[in-house]
Amino acid sequence: MLKIGIIGVGRIGKVHAEGISKYVKGAEVTAIADPFLDETGEQWAKSLGIQHISKDYRSILADTEIDAVLVCSSTDTHSQISLEAIKAGKHVFCEKPVDHNVEKIKEVMKAVQSSKYKYQVGFNRRFDHNFRSVKEAVAAGKIGTQHIIKITSRDPEAPPISYVKVSGGMFLDMTIHDFDMVRYLSGSEVVEVYAVGSVLVDPSIGKAGDIDTAIITMKLKNGAMAVIDNCRRASYGYDQRAEVFGSKGAVEIGNDTSSTTLLSTIDGVVAEKPLHFFLERYMQAYTTEIQEFVVAIENNTAVPVSVTDGLEPVIIGLAAKKSLDENRPVTIAEIKNTFGL
Amino acid sequence: MLKIGIIGVGRIGKVHAEGISKYVKGAEVTAIADPFLDETGEQWAKSLGIQHISKDYRSILADTEIDAVLVCSSTDTHSQISLEAIKAGKHVFCEKPVDHNVEKIKEVMKAVQSSKYKYQVGFNRRFDHNFRSVKEAVAAGKIGTQHIIKITSRDPEAPPISYVKVSGGMFLDMTIHDFDMVRYLSGSEVVEVYAVGSVLVDPSIGKAGDIDTAIITMKLKNGAMAVIDNCRRASYGYDQRAEVFGSKGAVEIGNDTSSTTLLSTIDGVVAEKPLHFFLERYMQAYTTEIQEFVVAIENNTAVPVSVTDGLEPVIIGLAAKKSLDENRPVTIAEIKNTFGL
Amino acid sequence: MLKIGIIGVGRIGKVHAEGISKYVKGAEVTAIADPFLDETGEQWAKSLGIQHISKDYRSILADTEIDAVLVCSSTDTHSQISLEAIKAGKHVFCEKPVDHNVEKIKEVMKAVQSSKYKYQVGFNRRFDHNFRSVKEAVAAGKIGTQHIIKITSRDPEAPPISYVKVSGGMFLDMTIHDFDMVRYLSGSEVVEVYAVGSVLVDPSIGKAGDIDTAIITMKLKNGAMAVIDNCRRASYGYDQRAEVFGSKGAVEIGNDTSSTTLLSTIDGVVAEKPLHFFLERYMQAYTTEIQEFVVAIENNTAVPVSVTDGLEPVIIGLAAKKSLDENRPVTIAEIKNTFGL
Amino acid sequence: MLKIGIIGVGRIGKVHAEGISKYVKGAEVTAIADPFLDETGEQWAKSLGIQHISKDYRSILADTEIDAVLVCSSTDTHSQISLEAIKAGKHVFCEKPVDHNVEKIKEVMKAVQSSKYKYQVGFNRRFDHNFRSVKEAVAAGKIGTQHIIKITSRDPEAPPISYVKVSGGMFLDMTIHDFDMVRYLSGSEVVEVYAVGSVLVDPSIGKAGDIDTAIITMKLKNGAMAVIDNCRRASYGYDQRAEVFGSKGAVEIGNDTSSTTLLSTIDGVVAEKPLHFFLERYMQAYTTEIQEFVVAIENNTAVPVSVTDGLEPVIIGLAAKKSLDENRPVTIAEIKNTFGL
Repeated sequence: MLKIGIIGVGRIGKVHAEGISKYVKGAEVTAIADPFLDETGEQWAKSLGIQHISKDYRSILADTEIDAVLVCSSTDTHSQISLEAIKAGKHVFCEKPVDHNVEKIKEVMKAVQSSKYKYQVGFNRRFDHNFRSVKEAVAAGKIGTQHIIKITSRDPEAPPISYVKVSGGMFLDMTIHDFDMVRYLSGSEVVEVYAVGSVLVDPSIGKAGDIDTAIITMKLKNGAMAVIDNCRRASYGYDQRAEVFGSKGAVEIGNDTSSTTLLSTIDGVVAEKPLHFFLERYMQAYTTEIQEFVVAIENNTAVPVSVTDGLEPVIIGLAAKKSLDENRPVTIAEIKNTFGL
Repeated sequence: MLKIGIIGVGRIGKVHAEGISKYVKGAEVTAIADPFLDETGEQWAKSLGIQHISKDYRSILADTEIDAVLVCSSTDTHSQISLEAIKAGKHVFCEKPVDHNVEKIKEVMKAVQSSKYKYQVGFNRRFDHNFRSVKEAVAAGKIGTQHIIKITSRDPEAPPISYVKVSGGMFLDMTIHDFDMVRYLSGSEVVEVYAVGSVLVDPSIGKAGDIDTAIITMKLKNGAMAVIDNCRRASYGYDQRAEVFGSKGAVEIGNDTSSTTLLSTIDGVVAEKPLHFFLERYMQAYTTEIQEFVVAIENNTAVPVSVTDGLEPVIIGLAAKKSLDENRPVTIAEIKNTFGL
Repeated sequence: MLKIGIIGVGRIGKVHAEGISKYVKGAEVTAIADPFLDETGEQWAKSLGIQHISKDYRSILADTEIDAVLVCSSTDTHSQISLEAIKAGKHVFCEKPVDHNVEKIKEVMKAVQSSKYKYQVGFNRRFDHNFRSVKEAVAAGKIGTQHIIKITSRDPEAPPISYVKVSGGMFLDMTIHDFDMVRYLSGSEVVEVYAVGSVLVDPSIGKAGDIDTAIITMKLKNGAMAVIDNCRRASYGYDQRAEVFGSKGAVEIGNDTSSTTLLSTIDGVVAEKPLHFFLERYMQAYTTEIQEFVVAIENNTAVPVSVTDGLEPVIIGLAAKKSLDENRPVTIAEIKNTFGL
Repeated sequence: MLKIGIIGVGRIGKVHAEGISKYVKGAEVTAIADPFLDETGEQWAKSLGIQHISKDYRSILADTEIDAVLVCSSTDTHSQISLEAIKAGKHVFCEKPVDHNVEKIKEVMKAVQSSKYKYQVGFNRRFDHNFRSVKEAVAAGKIGTQHIIKITSRDPEAPPISYVKVSGGMFLDMTIHDFDMVRYLSGSEVVEVYAVGSVLVDPSIGKAGDIDTAIITMKLKNGAMAVIDNCRRASYGYDQRAEVFGSKGAVEIGNDTSSTTLLSTIDGVVAEKPLHFFLERYMQAYTTEIQEFVVAIENNTAVPVSVTDGLEPVIIGLAAKKSLDENRPVTIAEIKNTFGL
């Protein structure tokens, strides 16, 4: 029974704690730490049978009974806690992104490479039933040689401006999942990026120095091309579609809905909207990613999302940002050179 | 070039005249007759290049240049005109039903059997792209041995009460198409019928002695079972679906729409309603049935819908009526015995 | 915290035990009993933290700490155990059917009526997201006055002949869910039944005295008509569809699938098959029904599926059987009279 | 009755001749000219009742009875014949593109502007039921302010290399329709273009100096962004989809199919492939565009696709080509400046 400590129990930390207690085999959450933990939080932790409750994550790192930690704290603390956890001899699951700062990710990479502990990054969509089905069809050769990869990713509502300001920008906060998906579905690497983007949803996002709508085109190493379209707000809900088109055909996925209901009236034939947002849409994926993390530790096999998988989308995101700023295609090599990669 | 005369140019006669002039190869309409023909009608006929225009169908039968006639007059005249047309040496295409009266159909059958001329009945749905696709899948063995045949057939609006009164009742007027479809899709014969029906749409239909909603179950000679559900009014339009289920799988068809448009808003994901009614839905079928009639004449091959195909659904309809009246399953043999068939 | 004992931990008993431990709030399984319990089963129970493990259900009934029992034993023991459990002062959740024998159900009804304990019957589909969505649309008046209710219910594979022999026949074993669904969706009662049925899937089912394919037509008290089509084997999986059509429109549900994937190749555009069978399809429903049972106990409110809801589908099933045997419509009143109901 | 002469009766000229004779009201084809006309062609023309048959298009221009001409000859002759036809006092419908050479289009524009005759360009997709439905939804404000426009346009098979060589390149030959569609659906103008493209389908296309797969991103004057993805070969048929996403929602269209058939077997649930290619897919659009041309002449109203609509997509195509060649975004202004526009 793998003993897990969760550092940071905001929304996503709670999702993981409950997911593990309900569905994950071979693991249990025995400790949580959160500086903002209040009485309600403590009650909640106790209701899950968690004994070790703290405001200081270092008490978890010091707990020798704990095998693995989940880093679910705010983004700016991910890399620092990761480094300490590795040093403390814990396996680490780190929510995305590892950091917005490439130098700090490099430090984590170095620590991971010289450690015997597992380090997995939280790109949950790789574990979603729909995206997995696309990946499997592509990997099984059902669509032949890849030509075009398309990802539509639109949120139901924009985050608060306070969040936008510390988010690292739309590319590093939101598109980063889609960059990861391009790498996952293609099994290849991005070579060059061109981004157009604009403020169409909310002018205050623009005032905060960010955009809310974008189209990003990519050239891949395998010769295929990819395109992502993003928007911070889709009135009809969380729009999460993808398509891979190749020499033998195309595989695509639509949105999940809460039922298959069709209502036919004088007004038309009405189907359900997509599931509202990530908590509704990706709950199964949040559990599966932890289950596979646990299995990788148990069997001492490779984690399904490595620290390199955590680095690459950040690089692509920085290239996209530069492309948008300078209105020109930017190679991944150009960005990597900057960081001596 | 086959020369065709059309007897009766109400709605469906006009559809045929225009269909032939636009799409049917190897045939032209050279004459029309209609007792109610007015100046607009004459103008319309002339615009199609039709020279022989008359109020008396006998002038068409007497026209030696005419090879074939389409009987599109009111139902109560179908069998009489058919008989005269056969006698006059014309190939005959007769709109459904041949007659509501079985004895009269028998007379037509006899005349057809002792004649060298073609006689086709207007069950247009057999020529529709969707129903044909189901038939072909079934005939090709794609669903294996037939188990269950289901037909949904709902009109967008009830006919006027004046029409209901002379319609022969819902089973002979509306369901007759579905009875034909059961025979067509299965390639088998109905053995027994059980019908439930009610007045749910409009009480005045009930006062006229008819029903407006029904479910009809059938046992078929090939061992399969069939079920039809009918309603005189579906608020969302003309609902024309079918399914054949068997040992290897199921083949089903949905409705045709005017576009593939999906509109996603806060209210849901809205698709188009079905095409409104038979003129919109079956226009292609009306042309194809005439084209195949023409080809059967040209090549002296069997017509795709024989006079027997015209008789059988009437028998099934009478069995359904008796079943409804007496609330018991009624065999086809029972009805046929009545008529010495 | 409601303490639950599960009597019978075959497939469905296990589903409930795991469902309760993972998802059901306010309840825990503290005891199980099963005469066939082996070491693996004990291990499994212990892994769920269940302490009280027995081969004799009476030890559960005698356990004063236990508030409620789930009767998941073989069908022929349901009513007897139900009676004893009520007497022992337990709330009872009983898997469907309460019994195949109406007299025994009547005994249970009597016991329930004179007891203060809750008694819920396991018609799980009422708790399924798709069927609930249809029910809600109907109840909200979205389709207006009901005209036609259609249910398609086909299993992916026939049960073993040994099971068929003790199943009570297809109508009481399989269609019983669909009879319940007609009552649930319509909110009305069945008045008359007509059934056609045949052996089309496997002759050995016929030799065992049962049928494997059927169409059942019903007249409802509210004036609507209903039709169910059943088959013990659909090559493409568990086919669970429904439609309610009325004066304002129609609401229908299709099958659930494991993903929204569409694969377009030279062979066509291929979607996923339906989820394979009831464990895959209704897992969420099995949990929700127990959750609502727990809530009804906590709040002392009416259970969502009463013992009467357990009786009625059995009556309808007996009417369907008589209809099939005698090839005539059979009223519910006729069957009820037999039992003094 | 408008008298029409058709110059060039290859595939598309024949489509127009037959379309006009069958469906277009108020017009008839009285003359055709084609230098490659053989006996079969003459026979065909006569079967449509066309009397004036010639190898020289000038005989049509000289025919004073002819009101309008359709220029359906090879692309390199479009502008020259257009100029002569205008001079000869004919209304002109010119197949796309007017020319690959902007200077020649400018000449035609000048001639059109100083003439009283109508000049319409053959962007048929504007008249297609699906694309029109999207346009109408956008124009009616159903999706609010436009954010993202997406067009998928893939051919079922690449043209012969001989054609590729004279096609003007994929952007001017194939994507030109999609550029037009971006303008049509948005009702706005393209401001800047960025294109990535590659040879993924057939290396001999690359040897001919062209590409076969591309993604083109555009910034629009109205603030929205657009993206087109193209491929010369989709194994599953002609893929013609579009989506417009905005502040209130999204409207999208899928492909047309030959039937609504779904076949469910052990292998999956299989729907029809898209209609094979443009002749199957856009037949209705080819007729409607001529009908609207005829109506514009009759009523002396603006044609639905002006000579400017013919110019703009060529400019966008040239910008896309330059973008591809120089791997940078290219403004429309940059291209227009080159031509003093």
